[in-house]
Amino acid sequence: MIISMEAGASQEQIQAVIGRIQELGYKAHPIIGVERTVIGVVGHLKRPQKELFEVLPGVENVVYISKPFKLVSKELKREPTVIDVEGVKVGGKELVIIAGPCSVESEEQIVTIAKAVRAAGAKMLRGGAYKPRTSPFSFQGLKREGLEMLAAAKRETGLKIVTEVLAIADIDLVCEYADVIQIGARNCQNFPLLEAVGRTSKPVLYKRGMSTTVEEWLQATDYILDGGNGDVILCERGIRTFETATRNTLDVNAVAVVKEASHLPIFVDPSHATGHNHLVTAAARAGVAAGADGLIIEVHHQPEKAWSDGHQSLKPDQFAECIRQVRRVAEAMGRTMG
Amino acid sequence: MIISMEAGASQEQIQAVIGRIQELGYKAHPIIGVERTVIGVVGHLKRPQKELFEVLPGVENVVYISKPFKLVSKELKREPTVIDVEGVKVGGKELVIIAGPCSVESEEQIVTIAKAVRAAGAKMLRGGAYKPRTSPFSFQGLKREGLEMLAAAKRETGLKIVTEVLAIADIDLVCEYADVIQIGARNCQNFPLLEAVGRTSKPVLYKRGMSTTVEEWLQATDYILDGGNGDVILCERGIRTFETATRNTLDVNAVAVVKEASHLPIFVDPSHATGHNHLVTAAARAGVAAGADGLIIEVHHQPEKAWSDGHQSLKPDQFAECIRQVRRVAEAMGRTMG
Amino acid sequence: MIISMEAGASQEQIQAVIGRIQELGYKAHPIIGVERTVIGVVGHLKRPQKELFEVLPGVENVVYISKPFKLVSKELKREPTVIDVEGVKVGGKELVIIAGPCSVESEEQIVTIAKAVRAAGAKMLRGGAYKPRTSPFSFQGLKREGLEMLAAAKRETGLKIVTEVLAIADIDLVCEYADVIQIGARNCQNFPLLEAVGRTSKPVLYKRGMSTTVEEWLQATDYILDGGNGDVILCERGIRTFETATRNTLDVNAVAVVKEASHLPIFVDPSHATGHNHLVTAAARAGVAAGADGLIIEVHHQPEKAWSDGHQSLKPDQFAECIRQVRRVAEAMGRTMG
Amino acid sequence: MIISMEAGASQEQIQAVIGRIQELGYKAHPIIGVERTVIGVVGHLKRPQKELFEVLPGVENVVYISKPFKLVSKELKREPTVIDVEGVKVGGKELVIIAGPCSVESEEQIVTIAKAVRAAGAKMLRGGAYKPRTSPFSFQGLKREGLEMLAAAKRETGLKIVTEVLAIADIDLVCEYADVIQIGARNCQNFPLLEAVGRTSKPVLYKRGMSTTVEEWLQATDYILDGGNGDVILCERGIRTFETATRNTLDVNAVAVVKEASHLPIFVDPSHATGHNHLVTAAARAGVAAGADGLIIEVHHQPEKAWSDGHQSLKPDQFAECIRQVRRVAEAMGRTMG
Repeated sequence: MIISMEAGASQEQIQAVIGRIQELGYKAHPIIGVERTVIGVVGHLKRPQKELFEVLPGVENVVYISKPFKLVSKELKREPTVIDVEGVKVGGKELVIIAGPCSVESEEQIVTIAKAVRAAGAKMLRGGAYKPRTSPFSFQGLKREGLEMLAAAKRETGLKIVTEVLAIADIDLVCEYADVIQIGARNCQNFPLLEAVGRTSKPVLYKRGMSTTVEEWLQATDYILDGGNGDVILCERGIRTFETATRNTLDVNAVAVVKEASHLPIFVDPSHATGHNHLVTAAARAGVAAGADGLIIEVHHQPEKAWSDGHQSLKPDQFAECIRQVRRVAEAMGRTMG
Repeated sequence: MIISMEAGASQEQIQAVIGRIQELGYKAHPIIGVERTVIGVVGHLKRPQKELFEVLPGVENVVYISKPFKLVSKELKREPTVIDVEGVKVGGKELVIIAGPCSVESEEQIVTIAKAVRAAGAKMLRGGAYKPRTSPFSFQGLKREGLEMLAAAKRETGLKIVTEVLAIADIDLVCEYADVIQIGARNCQNFPLLEAVGRTSKPVLYKRGMSTTVEEWLQATDYILDGGNGDVILCERGIRTFETATRNTLDVNAVAVVKEASHLPIFVDPSHATGHNHLVTAAARAGVAAGADGLIIEVHHQPEKAWSDGHQSLKPDQFAECIRQVRRVAEAMGRTMG
Repeated sequence: MIISMEAGASQEQIQAVIGRIQELGYKAHPIIGVERTVIGVVGHLKRPQKELFEVLPGVENVVYISKPFKLVSKELKREPTVIDVEGVKVGGKELVIIAGPCSVESEEQIVTIAKAVRAAGAKMLRGGAYKPRTSPFSFQGLKREGLEMLAAAKRETGLKIVTEVLAIADIDLVCEYADVIQIGARNCQNFPLLEAVGRTSKPVLYKRGMSTTVEEWLQATDYILDGGNGDVILCERGIRTFETATRNTLDVNAVAVVKEASHLPIFVDPSHATGHNHLVTAAARAGVAAGADGLIIEVHHQPEKAWSDGHQSLKPDQFAECIRQVRRVAEAMGRTMG
Repeated sequence: MIISMEAGASQEQIQAVIGRIQELGYKAHPIIGVERTVIGVVGHLKRPQKELFEVLPGVENVVYISKPFKLVSKELKREPTVIDVEGVKVGGKELVIIAGPCSVESEEQIVTIAKAVRAAGAKMLRGGAYKPRTSPFSFQGLKREGLEMLAAAKRETGLKIVTEVLAIADIDLVCEYADVIQIGARNCQNFPLLEAVGRTSKPVLYKRGMSTTVEEWLQATDYILDGGNGDVILCERGIRTFETATRNTLDVNAVAVVKEASHLPIFVDPSHATGHNHLVTAAARAGVAAGADGLIIEVHHQPEKAWSDGHQSLKPDQFAECIRQVRRVAEAMGRTMG
């Protein structure tokens, strides 16, 4: 950490900062410049809190040098984490596809879609039983009944189940049905929920918040890992920007940034990242080319009757074509698809 | 709602959209244009879901005409809501000040600050016992112990207590101590938590999310009102933008937009909206001039030793000066300050 | 400047960075930490270019300590700059109002509006003769003819003229008519244009770009000052964010940041910052309360027939009411209004 | 265009809007709803200006149905535009690579780099002779001398020359040397400059502004096409968002949106879109997978001594590896690389 003093900081102020550094158990390394003085803070184990110094008189600003996240960091664990989801390896050589509807609507619906996406190459089935909706007057999901329908689809197809949990109180129930529990974008900084899924042994598909920086996201991931659950699949799903032509802006840079910083696998959600079914395939290809370990794609056999997100869902034949194109890019990336 | 068809939409596609509108119980009003056809959808009671139409073949886009939020809307309730917090009227003629530290650190700390802010004109005391921190390795709050310290400060000063709740499991306990429960920015779209505080009878200070639009925020407010709790104080606390000179960007426009759209009171948090103590007073004045009903300001008697947010906290004498300046602006706005 | 080396940087890499620092004429101050080494760079006169070091092997990042802008800085000139616009003092105790239509449309129009805004308290008249329009198929301004109409309005009312210049080729002509030349938001980083107005002796009203940081804006202002023209009035006109309820987001924080960093006066444009006439007065009050030295407001006597920006223009009576409210806030701020 | 009236709009207000529509030569189609009335506006040829209606009493909002851009639109010209740059076909089956340094620094530098990038597969050479720099105190380019050096590099390698123009006054000179003239991001809405390059017969590489929406960008492109120059290569170079881990956020969605909306070719600039040389290759692959027709990449043989942008420049061997990876993705996309 580096503390830079104001141009006119007095000797007393500089000494006070040095005193505070030492009081907190760190070493101070002052550099006397022509215009101003900066002070290096050297410690061990725990990073000093920036805020403790920013408030001292004469301090202009304080800058961290080392990364703020720990357990997710490649500095801690060099080799990539490969997660075993009931036999499906996530984060390895294979590009893994999760597909399915936004919401579970009926057993017939979810089974029909499950069969279609399995045929096209998906290994896991998504489908929301608990839905975070902007308005309380929108459809909120079928809850336990929806989970039962997902179980039926799993029995029929063998696809692993990915489904979202919104509240701590529902985690136990969701864990009975899910192979992967999803934390949605709106809960990216819902720390009690992260801690709670960190205490389970289920793999977690953990989406980036719509305005969360990569650094904040990785710090928050530490909540899950710190709870003892290391099986986290990160998922970039588009960020909120000024652009209105698309629902969100797919941040492919973030895929590369995460790959460099962390040992965890990262997926891309091209459905939410674009918000329009005619843009999904291009975004899916881009995500894979950027280095993603998998994709999560919304598919509905009757998008015109879907209860939610129909406009960003692919029909089964569109999905099959999408996967054909994605497969070519995956192979160009040296990836396999089962 | 208005559905516009693509330039080349066929008669069959147009008829299919009209059929779907009628099937859902609405009336269809087509307008045949030179280049394209648009279809008005007229209903009653419940607004049709945009998504149900966006997916139909030939549809280019769908636009809502009426507002998506209901219970918070001025269309529903013309007169402003005035909330009685144990005798302190919020949303009336008086400008109400909430002040205190980011975190409760000790009884001595919170009582000292409480006395100072009361002397300067605050009516309520803020102080976090449960802290949402970006990293799991940062200080997380004193929890129940912190609530006890707030109670002590209330006994000493008579200030009403405002404190944040992060998890549904903590609501009952927090309600025993708090006069107003706070929902923080990161939980702006934590719908289960909103529903849960909607079932209490405590006034709620409900902060806008850092990237939540005003429309989404007001829709989410409906979760609280729909639960039966109408005592919501909205709070603009700065939004996330590209600007890095300040921690957030205070959106004073939002104050005016909310005042026009809703009957609920709205506060401004100039501490989080700027992130620097030397900018807080200017932002506080601006918020009041934009029409805010109150302010929530971070104050610490020893910001250089604060456990969190010290750099954006005012010292008691700075706070007193801030309030002197705010008072002049409040009077120019025709407001009183008790 | 502080250079931090990667955790695993070798001694050779560290020595290479130190060598490069010395080669460029600066002094190097290494700090050996437990995890990594950082190197302070101390110079004189000219700030070293960050980019020269970021590319060296083993360097993790480089951080500036001193501010990147010079001539606009308060460190260079402590006392506020007061600009004399033909007798109207800008940047002093008086709050100065500029008002008028978006575009000059006819002599009758501009004279009518000029009289109305003068009666309400404006000291200067705005009106575009050259219009930057998003589409080439929109009205582009009356050009020389429009300038003549502005001259007529000046003769009738004595108001000083503020009008925009888009191209270097038009500067001489515009200077013949304008008392203040305006650089619009889209030209905030049009450096050749800034240099060109820097070579004139006319005061410049210089708007922030819609996604320009305050730091970039102040750096770009140095282009004007460096050309020899020190009479720059900065103008915050709203920034582009994710929020869609308003045309832009008024950044009142920026007013306070500029006031701290620079000796130049700063205005607020509440018309563009909101985009809706019913929000203009609230934003105007907020801008003044944040510390602005003046306002520039769009006024049209027949907004329903305006050729551009009618929806954000106030009618003369609305403008008069706006100014009445602004005057109260200005007085609370210790300002006069002539 | 659809005009929606406020819930409480009077019959007189509705009739006034209808009258104004007819007065302007359009047809009005009112739809009387339960809560409010909306009015469809049907015209021909020229799109009515939204602003003319937004200001009428009782009008709540106005929404366009048809696209605001014309000449760039696929509705006007279905088949893709293929641009012939002295024999290099842009916008056809071949993926075209432009590469070179940020700034031309010396003849030796530019010739060395030109040879290296040609060897790796580039068809055109980039290099700035006129540099838009944030601060007036930074290096501004070698100007005419730099153009001469580019000419030397062209003689040596046969690479076509791409170089930026900042000011109208320099266009003629730049056209003598350039095969493609570049308009940079900061000039995306510098309309006089766009008009001026529209009057030349040189192909234009036209970068998106850092906060320009795709719709605004395409509208501004109409300025160039309207001047008679149809040879425009659009270039996505990253947008400004809240994320700070990268210099900009590459908007791959925009590539797909432009491909759907326009007949013009689109390139991606992974160097500016990421700002870090270690992220460039991932972004380049993603851009090609999203459908880009080409890439423009910064390359420097001695990035540690580059006068600008060294940290985002690839070394020749890194560039060669980047192109090897890009080639595989290009082939997966059915593209050739010469």
